[in-house]
Amino acid sequence: MAELKNRQWLLAARPQGLIKESDFRWNEAITPALKDGEMLVRNLAFSFDPTQRGWMSMDTYMPAIKLGETMKAGALGQVVESKKPGFAKGDLVQGLFGWEDYTITSGGGIMGFQKLPAGTDPLLALSLLGTTGLTAYVGTIDVGQVKAGDTFVVSGAAGATGSVAGMIAKIKGCRVIGIAGGPEKCQWLTKDAGFDAAIDYKNEKVGQELSRHCPKGIDVYFDNVGGEILDNCLARLADRARVVLCGAISQYNEAQGVAAHPPKNYFNLIFHGARMEGFLVFHFAQHFPQAIADMSKWYAEGKLKNRIDLANGLENAPKTIIRLFTGANIGKQLLKLGDPA
Amino acid sequence: MAELKNRQWLLAARPQGLIKESDFRWNEAITPALKDGEMLVRNLAFSFDPTQRGWMSMDTYMPAIKLGETMKAGALGQVVESKKPGFAKGDLVQGLFGWEDYTITSGGGIMGFQKLPAGTDPLLALSLLGTTGLTAYVGTIDVGQVKAGDTFVVSGAAGATGSVAGMIAKIKGCRVIGIAGGPEKCQWLTKDAGFDAAIDYKNEKVGQELSRHCPKGIDVYFDNVGGEILDNCLARLADRARVVLCGAISQYNEAQGVAAHPPKNYFNLIFHGARMEGFLVFHFAQHFPQAIADMSKWYAEGKLKNRIDLANGLENAPKTIIRLFTGANIGKQLLKLGDPA
Repeated sequence: MAELKNRQWLLAARPQGLIKESDFRWNEAITPALKDGEMLVRNLAFSFDPTQRGWMSMDTYMPAIKLGETMKAGALGQVVESKKPGFAKGDLVQGLFGWEDYTITSGGGIMGFQKLPAGTDPLLALSLLGTTGLTAYVGTIDVGQVKAGDTFVVSGAAGATGSVAGMIAKIKGCRVIGIAGGPEKCQWLTKDAGFDAAIDYKNEKVGQELSRHCPKGIDVYFDNVGGEILDNCLARLADRARVVLCGAISQYNEAQGVAAHPPKNYFNLIFHGARMEGFLVFHFAQHFPQAIADMSKWYAEGKLKNRIDLANGLENAPKTIIRLFTGANIGKQLLKLGDPA
Repeated sequence: MAELKNRQWLLAARPQGLIKESDFRWNEAITPALKDGEMLVRNLAFSFDPTQRGWMSMDTYMPAIKLGETMKAGALGQVVESKKPGFAKGDLVQGLFGWEDYTITSGGGIMGFQKLPAGTDPLLALSLLGTTGLTAYVGTIDVGQVKAGDTFVVSGAAGATGSVAGMIAKIKGCRVIGIAGGPEKCQWLTKDAGFDAAIDYKNEKVGQELSRHCPKGIDVYFDNVGGEILDNCLARLADRARVVLCGAISQYNEAQGVAAHPPKNYFNLIFHGARMEGFLVFHFAQHFPQAIADMSKWYAEGKLKNRIDLANGLENAPKTIIRLFTGANIGKQLLKLGDPA
């Protein structure tokens, strides 16, 4: 295989406040020769997720990306050359790859690595049927333990995970209230995504609206944002409520691993015999086959929608990750580099 | 039955900061005639629990005690006169009674009401085999889900619930580290209560000592104090850890139902797929018979100790509740009014 020009975005600085384009540095390299056990993957699409700010900042559930290293993303690519048994040119693969044209990988890693069936839709695999959908599924079903009749509240509701979590709760018979920023997102939730109600946190009083929509309290709160919205929900828990901690996007820009607005109302967990539980999706890997089977069926039946917010071109990767933190995206933020060969 | 003189402590003021003796007002009344369904109980002993500050302050899992009403306690008494079927003079009864010589009750109530077998030791019934021991048992076993080999940390470890929780975790095969204030309490934990280690938060650096005693992280943290100690433990969770929220005594003096020092490190619940769960002991009433059977056996075998810190005389009730919040007590704080007739 000839050496290939490889355009890359390297991590140039740890983010202070909102991620800036200058936190990344453009680089052009040449792919090195493959060693045994490695394969060269052409990247087709990247996933953007709030947790990636953590990877840029500090050690979390995986070590921080080092300064000068390629920025990482959950990604889908196609094998160009393989020296790894079981993988051949043309295979579609999914894993934790770099923000670059080509990634050399030996597979494995904390986020998993898998070959996908030929013909897989790369965008669907990186959204509803990938980590995002799986996160919504295990968060709602395994951690949130939703049951019919529950009042289910989700924040970041117009985001990729939040919207799917709400739709799954709805399928399971819950009354679903979404919290999102701005009338466009709220309208999408109630008109298209099937939510029972939506609260626009930019223009409405969240506490007051929660009290109105949840007269018997909140049975399950799926938290993507943290901060004051988490506190507003903690103040309105039903007995034996479950607070599912999926993320805390409102807090990520503020601090290094500690909450700028920590949950002052956590005593309500005691008063209501309630729990607040974090999770990492890969702890539930044994449930993935069932989750993918269920979600594929619901998607085919039209009960689950898969809204994608699509950017294009490697050069736009920094601009695209920033969209998550300014609340610009509706649905799953992806970036497409190319089509399968 | 002749009318009886009834000395009482009424709630005079909602506590600001530390409870003061002036938050209570002494009163002398005469017991009224019984109505059908009521009984007159002579109080023999009161339990003192940090949660009682909540009852004085605000609506929690039960409505706040009104100003001018008798202060309440979990208590044990003996029936003097009964107009309630099934209860007769001489019966030992346990329930939520007033800080007074005599309480008129019709039974029931959120904390439960029960007749105890003749010959029951009133002090044992109000400590190890009462709400305190049951709280430790369900918190450790049902909520904390302890298993052999776990690293178990408990704060307020020399208190009534904390000490029993640690001893139960030890019986279940955990390595047990207690956090308490002062060398006397710490010595009691390691020398008499069988803890593997104790950390003196008044004289040692809690974070540093936790790191030293929990090199693989904390599997179960049983929290009685909240505040910085909770945050120190959250920073050191093992994967899939359980944080049992039993109380937050360090926070009760500061604020009305919101934490003065809320848990800044709660993100670690996400990074470690961990949970933080509050509980109310009466949600687990179906486990009480098993709990009492287990604890009676362990007590008889000498594996569970029941240390009581005993005050005497109704007139000393205000001074006695304050001991909880200044950390004066070791083991279960009780106050004795008299012996069964």
